[in-house]
Amino acid sequence: MSSRYEVRLSGAGGQGLVLGGVILAEAVSLFEGKNAVQTQSYGPEARGGASKSEVIISDEEIDYPKATEIDLLLCLTQEACDKYSVDLKTNGILIADVRMVKELPEGDYRVYNLPILETAKEKVGKIFVANIVALGAIAHLLDAVSFDSVEKAVLKRVPKGTEDLNKRALKLGYNLVD
Amino acid sequence: MSSRYEVRLSGAGGQGLVLGGVILAEAVSLFEGKNAVQTQSYGPEARGGASKSEVIISDEEIDYPKATEIDLLLCLTQEACDKYSVDLKTNGILIADVRMVKELPEGDYRVYNLPILETAKEKVGKIFVANIVALGAIAHLLDAVSFDSVEKAVLKRVPKGTEDLNKRALKLGYNLVD
Repeated sequence: MSSRYEVRLSGAGGQGLVLGGVILAEAVSLFEGKNAVQTQSYGPEARGGASKSEVIISDEEIDYPKATEIDLLLCLTQEACDKYSVDLKTNGILIADVRMVKELPEGDYRVYNLPILETAKEKVGKIFVANIVALGAIAHLLDAVSFDSVEKAVLKRVPKGTEDLNKRALKLGYNLVD
Repeated sequence: MSSRYEVRLSGAGGQGLVLGGVILAEAVSLFEGKNAVQTQSYGPEARGGASKSEVIISDEEIDYPKATEIDLLLCLTQEACDKYSVDLKTNGILIADVRMVKELPEGDYRVYNLPILETAKEKVGKIFVANIVALGAIAHLLDAVSFDSVEKAVLKRVPKGTEDLNKRALKLGYNLVD
């Protein structure tokens, strides 16, 4: 059984997806002992409103760092979902923001329609922690990483003084998944 | 003539090299109309103190996002220089912090021994802008990007309230190169 996991975080520019990818990569590498490659690709297609960030995770060395058979895809906007869901693999996991993503891509996969942006805005009171709420849900669903490892990685990266806010966001995201 | 440029930023964890790579990739993609891929690799070798971040820049689509023939290498520590200079290409550019890097790798390349950390600490008064000082020097030396594009990308990414500090750091870094 392959130990390779491919994760793509997609949404709009400004939603903190680069930081989200970095935190996930640091969680699995620093605290789970795995290899990880974290990537942003910027091309003509990235000059619209959609943005993505990818993390490849493996117990082995990672020769090919692009995502081609995605295990877990996060979509925080409809545009991102339309653009970036094509590589989601059969039986992969799709986490879609329930308010923003109304039309799901065709295919066989497991969908989690979660109120990620709403949780950030209403329950934490800061829309900019939506990326951390999403990481909480990912920590719940992704076999390759534990909640504790993600929490430690979050605390290494977020600005001083925002630790409690981000811990709260992460836990709320984790609890969005039954 | 190839339009591909490979840049590697290396140093220690906590020196802001991921952010530096993201800013450089956004500068060339958003403001120069080029393609870019920005990568962090985390493996067993990354669990020491050395850290790196890479940016591949091209007018064409980027199929292979790993750096193998580096055009420009930044080294902010000796350990990073020892570990990550092997892929620097002949006649490539090596920017080494003059205080931290005492032993240069063997090979034919152009060396710039610059007081990057000292400039951040003494002239700007904040050691954490060393990554931005380095980006200023890179903007001067890398054909693929202009100073103005890097400045715009810096201002998009740095925290509110630190714009002037970072503009100053960038300009000082630019002026470190004759």
